[in-house]
Amino acid sequence: MLDRHAALALDDADPLARWRDEFVVPGDGVVYLDGNSLGMLPRRTVARLNRVMNEEWAAGLISSWDDWLDLPQRVGDRLAPLVGAAPGEVAVHDSTTVNLYQLVVSACALRPDRRVIAIDSAEFPTDRYVVEGIAESRELQIRHGFDRLDDVAVMVRSVVDYRTAEVADVAGETARATDAGAVALWDLSHAVGLLPVDLRAAGAQLAVGCTYKYLNGGPGAPAFTYVARELQATLPQPIWGWFAQTDQFAMGPRFEPQPDIRRVLLGTPSILALAAAEEGICLTVEAGIEAIAAKARRLTAFAIELCDQLGLVTSSPRDAVRGGHVAVVHPRARDIVTALASKRVLVDYREPDVVRLGCSPLTTRFVDVFDGLQCMDELVR
Amino acid sequence: MLDRHAALALDDADPLARWRDEFVVPGDGVVYLDGNSLGMLPRRTVARLNRVMNEEWAAGLISSWDDWLDLPQRVGDRLAPLVGAAPGEVAVHDSTTVNLYQLVVSACALRPDRRVIAIDSAEFPTDRYVVEGIAESRELQIRHGFDRLDDVAVMVRSVVDYRTAEVADVAGETARATDAGAVALWDLSHAVGLLPVDLRAAGAQLAVGCTYKYLNGGPGAPAFTYVARELQATLPQPIWGWFAQTDQFAMGPRFEPQPDIRRVLLGTPSILALAAAEEGICLTVEAGIEAIAAKARRLTAFAIELCDQLGLVTSSPRDAVRGGHVAVVHPRARDIVTALASKRVLVDYREPDVVRLGCSPLTTRFVDVFDGLQCMDELVR
Repeated sequence: MLDRHAALALDDADPLARWRDEFVVPGDGVVYLDGNSLGMLPRRTVARLNRVMNEEWAAGLISSWDDWLDLPQRVGDRLAPLVGAAPGEVAVHDSTTVNLYQLVVSACALRPDRRVIAIDSAEFPTDRYVVEGIAESRELQIRHGFDRLDDVAVMVRSVVDYRTAEVADVAGETARATDAGAVALWDLSHAVGLLPVDLRAAGAQLAVGCTYKYLNGGPGAPAFTYVARELQATLPQPIWGWFAQTDQFAMGPRFEPQPDIRRVLLGTPSILALAAAEEGICLTVEAGIEAIAAKARRLTAFAIELCDQLGLVTSSPRDAVRGGHVAVVHPRARDIVTALASKRVLVDYREPDVVRLGCSPLTTRFVDVFDGLQCMDELVR
Repeated sequence: MLDRHAALALDDADPLARWRDEFVVPGDGVVYLDGNSLGMLPRRTVARLNRVMNEEWAAGLISSWDDWLDLPQRVGDRLAPLVGAAPGEVAVHDSTTVNLYQLVVSACALRPDRRVIAIDSAEFPTDRYVVEGIAESRELQIRHGFDRLDDVAVMVRSVVDYRTAEVADVAGETARATDAGAVALWDLSHAVGLLPVDLRAAGAQLAVGCTYKYLNGGPGAPAFTYVARELQATLPQPIWGWFAQTDQFAMGPRFEPQPDIRRVLLGTPSILALAAAEEGICLTVEAGIEAIAAKARRLTAFAIELCDQLGLVTSSPRDAVRGGHVAVVHPRARDIVTALASKRVLVDYREPDVVRLGCSPLTTRFVDVFDGLQCMDELVR
């Protein structure tokens, strides 16, 4: 039988336990199980943003742009090892929505003879809406599911399912798409900073993802774009912005996009948001993605075992490969989430019947999982 | 003859002088004449971002989204009176590049029978590039200049010319475009926070602009989109993101965009960036746009008069209507800007021969203009 002592013992033995001290943790007994929606505030982010404000913005003024100008690529290089990208293959900028829009249009342009975009009907909403908008304006067809890919231009797919935490076989599915002549476009939003992903080894061409979940980059932190180096010199881009322009400040008469990852950049990036994202990303890299993934497996296994013990129904995979949250299915899920919040247990709700318990390895303790599920059990009874 | 005493006397008599104390001003005798590229750091922004980090992000965690969710519209409502918009007509989000892309595509969809986009060949680069990209992918034609509008779908135009500071007749030119059946899309980047603009009185339908110049919103601060209320319920949008979705967290199967200004929103906005922008915007509203515009006229008149006295050639308009900077034309402009920076006078350079002296009324003193031009005069001799 798992009890609170067991949870505390697991925390004592946890090699990542000390990383929680790197964060400003909420007081008053808050049990935070939603780091998969919004990661906690790293202490170093507070220091960094005050430096950016006072030393760079206030004191350096316009001359600080000399240093800020390549921040999207520099932060991208920090993030690159987490997703198996080489330096120069990732830029951190804009939002997942905008970046996905760009890459779906780009991918379709790489396969002008094909008229189908494949996406799961249960994919995260913004991905589905972006694809729907592109399909409508370009008279393309949407196919829900990935069984047939031989007429597909681009397969848009999440590495981790945002509801169940199922993990896709990135290497296998990329190979299957490539063999079928389709472009694989991965959304790493619920995977990056939680699981090691190896985009280059998988032969992946395009990917996007988010930095405000497991990467603790802050609310609405900029997203990222990955483009395999081989594609960068020629990738067609729908939005032609001045941050993609070769010799940007020459302000030349015609758009001549950079032949590298800067090609995906658009307008002037928020330096405050990028600096915060960089701190979260660096912290994850330092802690080590393999150790993080190992703790995620232990935390979610503990959560699933405890659910079984308490008679709570989970829909997350029971094998070793899953994302960082556990989905508890209950017909009154919405009410449970609200009631938990009033007891300072923060989880999230997903339509129609899912309570998501997020386990973010740098900040979530086994005792948080225990206390959260214990509280849920009392409510359900 | 203007001398340093005259400049100091003008500062003494300046009713806006005290607003400079609201900013973290650079030390060591820096003369900052580039607030038109990057506005200074408001003191209250430092306090606000520390509150957002510690109280909202760290302590409130995911529940702070209840308050953050409508921040793009709330900050838009703050900005609205500066541009003559009604509440609910402005959202602050993303970048000028992305927002312009959206609105140009939208405007073209409003005039499906027309195949021409009109834009000045000397327009700010990102505007030109965005239009070029849209024209290429949609087989539209670009016309440089606004003489003929009767076959134009959309006229893309800056209120203030970023090089010369010439000001367009927004009301007159909007009326001319509307009469000719074209949509007028204004870029307010170099005007907002500096001059009063009255979009509703002008009958303007669409506009974008930036908050990191005269609005002091921070490096790469989010831009804004204005859509006249009458268009909001039906405006077609190219990028379908979840922040535009009706009942967003229902995560419904089909994209059903909001019938109001939220329709232009895309992905999750950066809360840090938005909060900083809000502080800069509120400060401008409090100081009063009419007083700001009056001081801008006085500062630039002083700069022009001093240029005349020193024998420096200016290309900015000499009548009362001009933007907040003065363009000094010199064949060695680039070298002059570099040499000035080494003497801690910060101005900017625009190809091929322009030194821009930015006068940002809340932070620029007459003595800054005097010292900057004095230094330039010594260099030129």
